[in-house]
Amino acid sequence: MKPMAAEKGRITLAHGGGGRLTDQLLKNLILKHLPHQAVLLDSAVLDATDRKTAFTTDSYVVSPIFFPGGDLGKLAVFGTCNDLAVVGATPVALSLALIIEEGFELEALERLLQSVAQACREANVKIVTGDTKVVARGQADGIYINTAGVGKISPKARLGFERLETGDVILLSGTIGDHGLAIMAQREGLRFDTPIVSDVACLADLTCALIDELGEAVKFMRDPTRAGLAGVLVDVAENCDREVMIHEDRIPTHSATRAAAEVLGLDLLTVANEGKLVAVIDRPFAEPALNICRQFEKAARACVIGEVGGSHSPAQVVMTTTTGGQRIVQKPYGEQLPRIC
Amino acid sequence: MKPMAAEKGRITLAHGGGGRLTDQLLKNLILKHLPHQAVLLDSAVLDATDRKTAFTTDSYVVSPIFFPGGDLGKLAVFGTCNDLAVVGATPVALSLALIIEEGFELEALERLLQSVAQACREANVKIVTGDTKVVARGQADGIYINTAGVGKISPKARLGFERLETGDVILLSGTIGDHGLAIMAQREGLRFDTPIVSDVACLADLTCALIDELGEAVKFMRDPTRAGLAGVLVDVAENCDREVMIHEDRIPTHSATRAAAEVLGLDLLTVANEGKLVAVIDRPFAEPALNICRQFEKAARACVIGEVGGSHSPAQVVMTTTTGGQRIVQKPYGEQLPRIC
Repeated sequence: MKPMAAEKGRITLAHGGGGRLTDQLLKNLILKHLPHQAVLLDSAVLDATDRKTAFTTDSYVVSPIFFPGGDLGKLAVFGTCNDLAVVGATPVALSLALIIEEGFELEALERLLQSVAQACREANVKIVTGDTKVVARGQADGIYINTAGVGKISPKARLGFERLETGDVILLSGTIGDHGLAIMAQREGLRFDTPIVSDVACLADLTCALIDELGEAVKFMRDPTRAGLAGVLVDVAENCDREVMIHEDRIPTHSATRAAAEVLGLDLLTVANEGKLVAVIDRPFAEPALNICRQFEKAARACVIGEVGGSHSPAQVVMTTTTGGQRIVQKPYGEQLPRIC
Repeated sequence: MKPMAAEKGRITLAHGGGGRLTDQLLKNLILKHLPHQAVLLDSAVLDATDRKTAFTTDSYVVSPIFFPGGDLGKLAVFGTCNDLAVVGATPVALSLALIIEEGFELEALERLLQSVAQACREANVKIVTGDTKVVARGQADGIYINTAGVGKISPKARLGFERLETGDVILLSGTIGDHGLAIMAQREGLRFDTPIVSDVACLADLTCALIDELGEAVKFMRDPTRAGLAGVLVDVAENCDREVMIHEDRIPTHSATRAAAEVLGLDLLTVANEGKLVAVIDRPFAEPALNICRQFEKAARACVIGEVGGSHSPAQVVMTTTTGGQRIVQKPYGEQLPRIC
């Protein structure tokens, strides 16, 4: 039996065959980085509890795989944790399914798995089940990762579009567009004095603190990934059938990110974020909510960017611009930035 | 806004952008076929119970996508249900994550989603969360599907390698190799008088009946997919540190499948199945177990193919061949049949 080194540091079709070489890949590489996790199991047994369970999935196909501030592995863990977090859940267990292109470098896979393991430690979540498939050269682009997640929903969470009312405030946890522009700047070879760094981060500690301390005063949460802040706010307006009013000058941005967006002709409102929270909060609890955010470095620049308007106006998002004009914010039609997450 | 028909019946990068066109794809196509399911939600809330939960994932990359007896959609539902079934769980909820190549035919996607919906009805399971990504031409091969699954484990289930003892019997629910050979025959353009049809099927009703009626007399279950019957039996032998003895003449096969395996030089023991069960049963319960199997059409040819031997022999699988010889059955080393599931 040939050792893995003889395969010249590359994934082969044989690594995905379910035979000895798959066993070796699992034991020598995957379990090396995830030693306390049970990726070998086809099914995982989770502890029973009497709380409601959240369940989510996402495939991650970002290109390039390694980017300033993160990589595909970190994104796959935090992205799925964030989907659980915004429904008021504490992430408990993740699955990890890899689709790998023949010829992908083992060294890169190793780096990704290290990153997955580190992200799991940070998010206090475990990978409990997994799967690995290999496809031929030209049938994928390096590696794609799917993670599904299970979480326990806080009994204090009462989240939903139907709870939104006129006067509720829109809270944003920090700068927008950093993830999308970090990816695009790297793809385009743009360089700035201050590098653009992806904001990829786990939001679960922040969301849990908000729900824990403010309970039902937190009415809605979402992380603005694909389609960006615009996508979330348009969903809010349409689903609560009210106008949403925001102020451009209150939306935090990094100057390098703004500059890159201008060069590339992108609207930061529609660019993906991977570590930001949009929350709709009952107005009297706006200040307490901001104070909670500011306890977290990743939400240090949290602010109220607008509010839910009346139901007499059209269900749309209206932004007061820095020059005092008004602009209707729309969801992007299609794909601006392919493979951004 | 252009209607989807204007896109010439093909998936575009824009369908994966998270914007309007993604909404349209979800509303006009995915929810059309899965109307009672909540694929629109990023996270799903499952009913709480006091039972143990099983959680599993698998990516499905089979080529061709449509094959005799099934397709990628059916496989993605039943395959994940089967992973839950063999740990003693009733499948409750699935996630559905699609990675689609730009240019993939919408008509084919529609057929796959119909198939997913039909399979969910048969398996009495719901898709509760989903994700869709599109990658550029040449970055996937048509479509890949990941499903993760959550199931409730029967309180009567007591399954595990550690329970296996000398004298336990090995039960196989029917013919082997049909899935792998159906795929390979189609790829190679082989034709037989009797077509080879994949055995893809949901095993959960069968496994639940076994656990329900026989309880802890069912000691271990596995569906022999990649690496086939050989893979499962070698795992059994190594994990219970005992010899496993089987009889070639007791293993059911279809004649067309056997013929195709001969033409292609494949060992049926190592070929993937997608609707077969291997169960290790406490010997006194062998007949009751077979009687339960025979109530299901898909397990009508169930039989006892061997037994767990003593711990004094090497932990290997020994097969008495049809000619009376003995052969050591080994797990395949690498990949025989790429993208078989």
